[in-house]
Amino acid sequence: MSDLQPLDPLIQALRRLPGVGVKSAQRMAFHLMQRDQDGARVLSRALQEAVDSVQHCSRCNTFTHDAVCPICRDAGRDAARLCVVETPADLAAMERTGAYSGYYFVLMGRISPMDGVGAKDIGLPRLLERVADGVVQEVILATSFTTEGEATAHAVTELMQGRQVQVTRLARGVPVGSELEYVDLGTIAHALVERR
Amino acid sequence: MSDLQPLDPLIQALRRLPGVGVKSAQRMAFHLMQRDQDGARVLSRALQEAVDSVQHCSRCNTFTHDAVCPICRDAGRDAARLCVVETPADLAAMERTGAYSGYYFVLMGRISPMDGVGAKDIGLPRLLERVADGVVQEVILATSFTTEGEATAHAVTELMQGRQVQVTRLARGVPVGSELEYVDLGTIAHALVERR
Ligand SMILES: [Zn+2]
Ligand SMILES: [Zn+2]
Repeated sequence: MSDLQPLDPLIQALRRLPGVGVKSAQRMAFHLMQRDQDGARVLSRALQEAVDSVQHCSRCNTFTHDAVCPICRDAGRDAARLCVVETPADLAAMERTGAYSGYYFVLMGRISPMDGVGAKDIGLPRLLERVADGVVQEVILATSFTTEGEATAHAVTELMQGRQVQVTRLARGVPVGSELEYVDLGTIAHALVERR
Repeated sequence: MSDLQPLDPLIQALRRLPGVGVKSAQRMAFHLMQRDQDGARVLSRALQEAVDSVQHCSRCNTFTHDAVCPICRDAGRDAARLCVVETPADLAAMERTGAYSGYYFVLMGRISPMDGVGAKDIGLPRLLERVADGVVQEVILATSFTTEGEATAHAVTELMQGRQVQVTRLARGVPVGSELEYVDLGTIAHALVERR
């Protein structure tokens, strides 16, 4: 059967991508082989290079080509502040605001009992180590405002109990530029409670 | 920026997969790097091996590791019959029925004016060559029963005009095992017209 289905190994490998079932994998394999072999080569190399050369920053845990990432190497930032985010994409979003000049810690996940991800599976022990440097005064929780993100923020808060650091959380509220009519009620309720 | 976003090349490469936008590509890259680096290696190799070793069968045009695929090498099949399908997956479906013993021709696509795929972009010239062997007596059209599949079947039929081959089409009708109540009306109407 293997030569009757020469694309089977590729189809099986594509199924390891999240959200890709057998039909999508077949469509992807067929597309690459029939219409974009160059894309297949580019993707093959990008995967190999990412696995070979991307590592975790030893200070903030984000993905980087070096032992310590460019942000952690930047001595000009505010070392008293440490912002805790779930993913490198969240870190990038914070950076794009231009409103934050401290350092980061990237959990590389969030607590999700449904998916079997507990407090130990995200980088909490390493975060504790990072905070114990005696310089960090404020830990800013920038995890998602979802059930899982809130559970994660809660776990970090507990972890910081009894340590000489202040724990803060990004404010919840109505997104800038949105019309109240289209904002969900929970958000409006929170914005009302946290009004200032 | 490149070391701030070390997964960017991988994310860009993943976007070449059909149906994968920037958000999905980010999720896939993150998943592979954080939770399934072995999956990334396996996919990298599968892509490279598919591009390096899979080719088109010189007789039926399907994907194969060899110059001529196992089905075309099988001298025990009925050489008077040639079934025209759109993709290798369709060929595999026909084979699984166990009801067909002739040979195949795989168009590797279907006519789709919307996507700029015309009669010349699918393997019609090679099909014409294949049919001209003087042995094929019947061309069985097993393209999809969609607008594009019908247009493709029509184009093949026109191509065969004046040649000494009979052109037939798979019968349309109510799928085996289905309750009439749940079958779409177009299918029922066709089944009625083509009743026998
Ligand atoms: Zn870092
Ligand atoms: Zn063949």
